[in-house]
Amino acid sequence: MKLHPIWQEYPSLVPELEMTIQLMEKSVKLKNKAVEQAILEMIHSGGKLLRPAYQLLFFQFGPNQDQQKAASLAAAIEMLHTATLIHDDVVDKAELRRNLPTINAKFDNTTAVYAGDYLLISCFKLLADYTQTLNSLRINSRNIEKILDGELGQMNSRYRIDGSIDEYLSNISGKTAELFALSCAIGAMESGCSEKFSKKCGEIGLNIGMAFQIIDDLLDYTKSSSQIGKPVLEDVRQGVYSLPLLYALQENKAKLAPYLLKKDQMTMEDAQMVWTIVHQSKGIEKANALAESYTNKALRAIDKLPSTPKQTKELLYQLTSSLLQRQN
Amino acid sequence: MKLHPIWQEYPSLVPELEMTIQLMEKSVKLKNKAVEQAILEMIHSGGKLLRPAYQLLFFQFGPNQDQQKAASLAAAIEMLHTATLIHDDVVDKAELRRNLPTINAKFDNTTAVYAGDYLLISCFKLLADYTQTLNSLRINSRNIEKILDGELGQMNSRYRIDGSIDEYLSNISGKTAELFALSCAIGAMESGCSEKFSKKCGEIGLNIGMAFQIIDDLLDYTKSSSQIGKPVLEDVRQGVYSLPLLYALQENKAKLAPYLLKKDQMTMEDAQMVWTIVHQSKGIEKANALAESYTNKALRAIDKLPSTPKQTKELLYQLTSSLLQRQN
Repeated sequence: MKLHPIWQEYPSLVPELEMTIQLMEKSVKLKNKAVEQAILEMIHSGGKLLRPAYQLLFFQFGPNQDQQKAASLAAAIEMLHTATLIHDDVVDKAELRRNLPTINAKFDNTTAVYAGDYLLISCFKLLADYTQTLNSLRINSRNIEKILDGELGQMNSRYRIDGSIDEYLSNISGKTAELFALSCAIGAMESGCSEKFSKKCGEIGLNIGMAFQIIDDLLDYTKSSSQIGKPVLEDVRQGVYSLPLLYALQENKAKLAPYLLKKDQMTMEDAQMVWTIVHQSKGIEKANALAESYTNKALRAIDKLPSTPKQTKELLYQLTSSLLQRQN
Repeated sequence: MKLHPIWQEYPSLVPELEMTIQLMEKSVKLKNKAVEQAILEMIHSGGKLLRPAYQLLFFQFGPNQDQQKAASLAAAIEMLHTATLIHDDVVDKAELRRNLPTINAKFDNTTAVYAGDYLLISCFKLLADYTQTLNSLRINSRNIEKILDGELGQMNSRYRIDGSIDEYLSNISGKTAELFALSCAIGAMESGCSEKFSKKCGEIGLNIGMAFQIIDDLLDYTKSSSQIGKPVLEDVRQGVYSLPLLYALQENKAKLAPYLLKKDQMTMEDAQMVWTIVHQSKGIEKANALAESYTNKALRAIDKLPSTPKQTKELLYQLTSSLLQRQN
């Protein structure tokens, strides 16, 4: 099993991330060996493990340092994330994820739906096994419910050419940022930090997650790839309008609408046109500026964190700034 | 909201079952109002609420009588059950459930997948909120994981004309009986009964669930309906071979195999033939006998339960014997 290359620059995190993967493996025990294998392949497919990494880093701030517990909770977080990816792939009829066939493609929807369900439940099993108190487990369950609510909320906004920036932000908050927030807050809380401090860590995670998702959406418009237009086409066909397009719609709705209104009948040429109009309408610059503002909020707050023997604050700063400068 | 008519004979249970429904309603709070509505309709569609009812009845055996807690845990159990039904409908592409359009039919797969996920997570939220101790929550999580494992296990056996009776029993145990077992065991445990007594209650639930599922599978072959053959056709086409057919295969494999091997190409006439051969091969009698043996095991154990002021034992006996004599 190989960790994603981003971790080469953070050798102190490697053992704990490897332990996280091992705990996920150990937790997946199914009668149906084919499905077990599919889940294990997904676990080994080289995801970035960002959420567990943040969880592990924030765990270093508290007085109770128990590596088994830290890695188990990190595994729970990653299993939740993996479950939502598997179900997203069913819903999006995706065939590839991380360059491997998705579970729905390799097996079928049945397997993928139940495999995701199994991981969701395993996540709770791990949380229940390692969370300190019933009370913090209650808070975690509530937050996970909020994350699912966010996923469902997003569906409201499809195909809305008058969708607002606020709605987009609330959607990506639910879809991405809340899980980053939860990872950071659980890390702090479960290592014995105060509720107030843990909440602050959660806010840092939220800002990281917001910037991360905006940058992810920006990459569809800025990657210098021969595939320009393809990710745009896929999202826009499905009625998912991300920040650069929403900013462009504010300026150039009349020009964009005829393409967008084709919905799933859009061609690659239409997508190229959308791509071009978004670039002309300053959609990229504005989205970049917003991502930067979230990034700076996160980095300023990280800078104010206390020092630890493991130089956690410095690692957090380095990881966050390199992660959120992916566009370069 | 109307409860299923079976509860007219159990007026003492009605207020708690109504409270259970109300708690489910209160727990479903979504930004996406359309999905919220779909889940609420499913909750109001008149399911039998058997699992919550057993949970509520076994809750009466312990010293700690807290109606709010009893109904909340019952709501959690029913939400878990509802989540699996919603996902089963996605997987089976079912269009109707309880004579109403399924969520996947009325909305789409996306909505149904996420709605099921939301309910799974809400189930854990309710469990975490009302379970007495972290330890019993851990046991519950482990058991719920086992139930999902059972669902996935079932897929191994599809289209296997040499599938064994043991495999069938292990499948229905995972698919149905484990959740009945969990309902009974949680009821006893969370009202403060001993672990030993709660385990015994779980075994009663397991036997009830086994008999319940066998009878459900038998009904496909014994209902005097103009629809004879249709449920058989649907299951057999999908490669799900239930107990009467498995018994018949033991006697008449050569005669049945040509029809079964058509898999999803089976016609209604083929299904009628399968139906006839199963009847000729004593598949019905043998399955009936096995259901009766599970029923009797459950009833004998219920008979040995202690008395309560609410006549719980008598109610359990009455409910279980009428439930498990549905074939008459």
